[in-house]
Order: sequence, then structure tokens, then C-alpha cells
Amino acid sequence: MSTPTNHQIRLAARPVGLPKDSDWQRTEEPARPPAEGEVLVQTLYLSLDPAMRGWMNEGKSYIPPVGLGEVMRAGGIGRVVASAAPAFAVGDHVSGALGVQEYATLSAKALTKVDPTLSPLPVHLSALGMPGMTAYFGLLDVGQPKPGDTVVVSAGTGAVGAVVGQIAKIKGCRTVAIAGGPEKCRYAVETLGYDAAIDYKAGDIRKDLRTHCPNGVDVYFDNVGGDILEAVLAQLARKARIVVCGAISQYNNTTAVKGPANYLSLLVNRARMEGMVVFDYAERYPQAVAEIAGWIKEGRLVSREDIVEGGVAAFPDTLLKLFTGENFGKLALKVAD
Amino acid sequence: MSTPTNHQIRLAARPVGLPKDSDWQRTEEPARPPAEGEVLVQTLYLSLDPAMRGWMNEGKSYIPPVGLGEVMRAGGIGRVVASAAPAFAVGDHVSGALGVQEYATLSAKALTKVDPTLSPLPVHLSALGMPGMTAYFGLLDVGQPKPGDTVVVSAGTGAVGAVVGQIAKIKGCRTVAIAGGPEKCRYAVETLGYDAAIDYKAGDIRKDLRTHCPNGVDVYFDNVGGDILEAVLAQLARKARIVVCGAISQYNNTTAVKGPANYLSLLVNRARMEGMVVFDYAERYPQAVAEIAGWIKEGRLVSREDIVEGGVAAFPDTLLKLFTGENFGKLALKVAD
Repeated sequence: MSTPTNHQIRLAARPVGLPKDSDWQRTEEPARPPAEGEVLVQTLYLSLDPAMRGWMNEGKSYIPPVGLGEVMRAGGIGRVVASAAPAFAVGDHVSGALGVQEYATLSAKALTKVDPTLSPLPVHLSALGMPGMTAYFGLLDVGQPKPGDTVVVSAGTGAVGAVVGQIAKIKGCRTVAIAGGPEKCRYAVETLGYDAAIDYKAGDIRKDLRTHCPNGVDVYFDNVGGDILEAVLAQLARKARIVVCGAISQYNNTTAVKGPANYLSLLVNRARMEGMVVFDYAERYPQAVAEIAGWIKEGRLVSREDIVEGGVAAFPDTLLKLFTGENFGKLALKVAD
Repeated sequence: MSTPTNHQIRLAARPVGLPKDSDWQRTEEPARPPAEGEVLVQTLYLSLDPAMRGWMNEGKSYIPPVGLGEVMRAGGIGRVVASAAPAFAVGDHVSGALGVQEYATLSAKALTKVDPTLSPLPVHLSALGMPGMTAYFGLLDVGQPKPGDTVVVSAGTGAVGAVVGQIAKIKGCRTVAIAGGPEKCRYAVETLGYDAAIDYKAGDIRKDLRTHCPNGVDVYFDNVGGDILEAVLAQLARKARIVVCGAISQYNNTTAVKGPANYLSLLVNRARMEGMVVFDYAERYPQAVAEIAGWIKEGRLVSREDIVEGGVAAFPDTLLKLFTGENFGKLALKVAD
């Protein structure tokens, strides 16, 4: 079988601080035909996630780092173009860890079928994909919000945060977004239904938190770490729960990560800070997908994607948008129609 | 009624760093006779606790600070010398917040009867007092150890830590103390039954933790914060629980508290860090006292007190022993026979 040419982006060096162009290598090679039990997938959309920055570092984490010279790890949505596995037929839409490349040859076991009639394809990388799963299980299982609780979400309009805020609202909570700039703050309140939004680029976060969370913060869903985490720790309610989902403010540090100097607020407030990794909930993804798809259908939850054209070649530049706060909604790269 | 002279130690100034002599004021006045519903108590033993340092600071915490000019707050054991409350008779032994003074006139509701036949009086300030209650509820309710778990305790031979380590052992855990100096480490293993002890003043804590906790730390009971907290965060097991009980290494800081730079280990390990304040468990103290007294009687749990003579006048100097690590066992001041 003749296969198409596969353009790829590989990790060439471990970045110090923000990834630079020389940390990447552009390669091309023929796509590998599927062996027994495998499927050849053409990449349609790739998901760009803050967690990618962590995968580029050496050292133990919740998954192994991407090796030097390997195709950069990325989740994506694709279409089956050749199949040697009974579970998949040519033309099926699938999601999986396709990598930053135009074609991926993967075990059928590593792929999940996607129903394109449920939502447009990019939504399967957003509210119905990893960000949605992270929001759903992080908020509900770890954050355990009760009706009437005040829920604060940093990166509150981001791919994960937007879903957290909307689910918290559906569950009867008072919701407060922290976001950067007036446009995102307006979107948070007008479109995502937050009760209030705090612009971390303007004014004084601690004062704004006192204003908008007069009874303290019951649940804080933390995507950013750093100074914002410290500000929220200063305003915790008794028995508060902090969901540690990420710390995007710290991922490109060239010096040590800044730990929260006021973590003893946990003691004073009998509060808890707990980490979560979405993969632990894989068995329950179908339940979350069904529930979130239902909310989207009922008009109670919106999913916003920021889709960048340009194929895999645009990956290195597009990734940086995550760390400048430039993207607005779930960042995805369109690789093919 | 004529009353005895009452010598007192009052807070004269808010300390910066370690409390100095000029932060205290020595006063004397006649003890106040009890009004209806009150009791006059002669102080026998006062409890000296790391938490006292926090009470001397201005600002919101889990209890209000001691006001300038007020008698320093302290728990203690005393004997009723006059009673205007039906629940207490002259000669009864009681525990309560007597303050650093020779006599306290308190509402009967603020006192608890102590049974001197159950244990020697100082034990009621130690394994059967606040330190024991803190250990019991902090470990069992917040730490939730399972048999076979590795439990690490900082200040592992201290008033709280010694009880934590022994209860964890009773519950079938592998226990590791962190303590200062060879004498305390030997005592930890030989008397308190820890499986291992790490001397934080010698060697490399991170390396020692890897040696003694090869499968990671399931429960960390933190009394100290600072560098030791960071070292343990680097060695967490999946789903670990950190009980934030105190941070004695940081109480006398004149600069900002050092937050744990590697707190994202909570994320990687899906771990949790949770604060506790013993007063929340007051309704269940009798259950804990009964169970701990049973273990002491069976010889399964030992309580060690470090009793300093010298009366209330010795309080300022004695308190400092807590912050130098000089005391060995529960630190108490003997005020009267």
C-alpha cells in the first residue's frame, strides 16, 4: 500500500523558559501502513494544551516526558484512512494521542470513536474532550461543590475553566471567574453566566476577591498557580477545597516555582488542596460526555474554540498563544479539512 | 473572702521573630473571688505549645490573638480552691485555658474535670490533652491511614508527633519519624516504636526519605513546614494525604513564610494537603481520651513530658525551648504542687 507523506513536528531540545523555534525539528516521512490491529488516521484537528509544556521537561511527572527526537505528543481528532482493525472503518472519526503530525498509525485500542453528529469536531477536543473531562471530574469529584457555594475559577474563560464555571452554575453555585482583560471578563459574565469576573491584569485581585466573595471562597479551581493562588488562599472560607489542576503561570519559569507563601491558610480554614489528573477518570468519560452533550443541547453550556489554520507547521508559534493568554477559548490547530 | 496573690505574665508587645523578654510584662494582683457560676482555680501545670507563638501575632487566625496587656493564653491543669458553681467542689482537678498565672477565675463552663487516677496530671496536658487530641483526630480523620501505609511524622518525638507515630503503628502502618539529633532518633525507634527515624540535622533528608520510604509517603503529618515539607512533597506516593498541623520552622520568621515550591507534586501524585484545628473535634474528645488512656494502660502508647520547674516567672525562657528543639517530650511548666 502506498501511503501519503507525513509532516511532523518533533522535540529537538528541552526548552528553558518559553519554547523557541530551535527546540523543534520539522521532519517528513511516508506514513506507516497499519499492521494487524492498527489504524492509519489522518489528523484533522490537534488540541493545544498548557500541559504540553510539562511534557517537554525531563523528569518524573504523571506521564513520561516526550523523548528528544520524538514526535511531539498531542491529542487530536482524525479520520480513519486505512484500517487493519475490525472496530474501525475507513471514514470513521476518532480521537486519540495522534501527535503533532499529519498522519498517525496507532493501535485501535488507543483510539476512541467520535460521533460528529453530536457536536462539530473541535468540540470533541474542548467541552467533550480532555478539557471538559478535566473540568467535570475536577470540579465535581475533587471540588465537591454544594448549592450556594462560591466557586472561583482561574483562567475562567479557558478551555477547562469555562466548563468548570458553567457546570458550577448548573449545580447552583455562585461563580466568579478570574481572567485577563475586559473582553474575557465580559464574555465570562455575559456568555458563560459567571456572577462576577475579576480582571487579573487590572486592579487588585485580593480586594476584588473580598468584594465578590464576601463569605469567602468555598471551591477554588486553580489552573494558574503563582500570585493568583496566593490571593485566593487569603480569602478561603472554612472547609474550602482547592482543586490543583494546573499552574500555567509557572510552567515557563527559569527559576524555581513559587510556592504559596500563605499555604497555612489551609490550617486556619481547615481547608484542603488536592491535585487531579484527568486520565484517572477514563472509565467514567462516557458518563461525562453524555451529560455535557446534554447540557450543550439544552443551551445550558457553551463551548468556544479558537481554531488556528496552518497545519502542523504552525504548531510551534500557536503553542505560545497559551502562555501569553492570547487565545480565547479552547486552542486547536486545523491540520486538514 | 480573702484571696491569694496572683502572679501573672502578660503580653506587653507583639514579638518580631523569637519572643524577647521585653515582649512580656510581669504583674501581680489579688486573685478575683468567683462570682455565681464561676470557679477559682490554682494553676498546677501549664502547657507550652508552638501554637502560642501564633496567638501573639496580630491578625485573623483560627482564634483571636492575645491582646496587648492581657494575661498570656495557656492551657493548664489546676485544682479548685473556691467554687460558686455546683458542678465543681474544692479539691477537684480541672483542665482549661487558665492562662500564664497562678490563679484563674473562670466560668465553670470553660473547665473540664480531670481524673488524676487515670494518669499523672501532666499526661492530661500531653497524650490525654490537646497534643493527644490533635494527633488522634489529625491522623485518623484527616490523614486516614490504612494498614501498610507509610506514615511520616515531622517533630516525630514532639508532644503531638510522638502520639501520631504510636497511633499509626497501632493501626498497622510503617512509621518514620523526622527528628533532630541522635538522641531523639534513638528514642523514636526504641521507645516510640517507629520503624525508622531521620535526623534532619544530619545528612540529606531527601535521600533518607527515599531510603526509608521506597514506595513513597502515603501520609505525612506536618508539624514543621519549611524545607522538611518540601522534602516530603518530593517523595509522595499516589493519593498521599498531608495533614497540615503546624509549621514551627516558620513561626518566628521575620520574612515571609516559605511556601512549598514543589506543591505541584500534589497534582502529579493526585495528593491532598489539608489543614486541621483540634478545637473542631471537641465533642469527640471523650472518645479519644478513653481510647488513648486504654492504649497507655495496655503499654502500647507512652507519653513523655518535659517538666520545667520555676513557676510562671520561668515562662518566657521556657517557651523558647520549643523553637530551639531543646525540649524532649511535651513541654510543661510546673506552677504549684
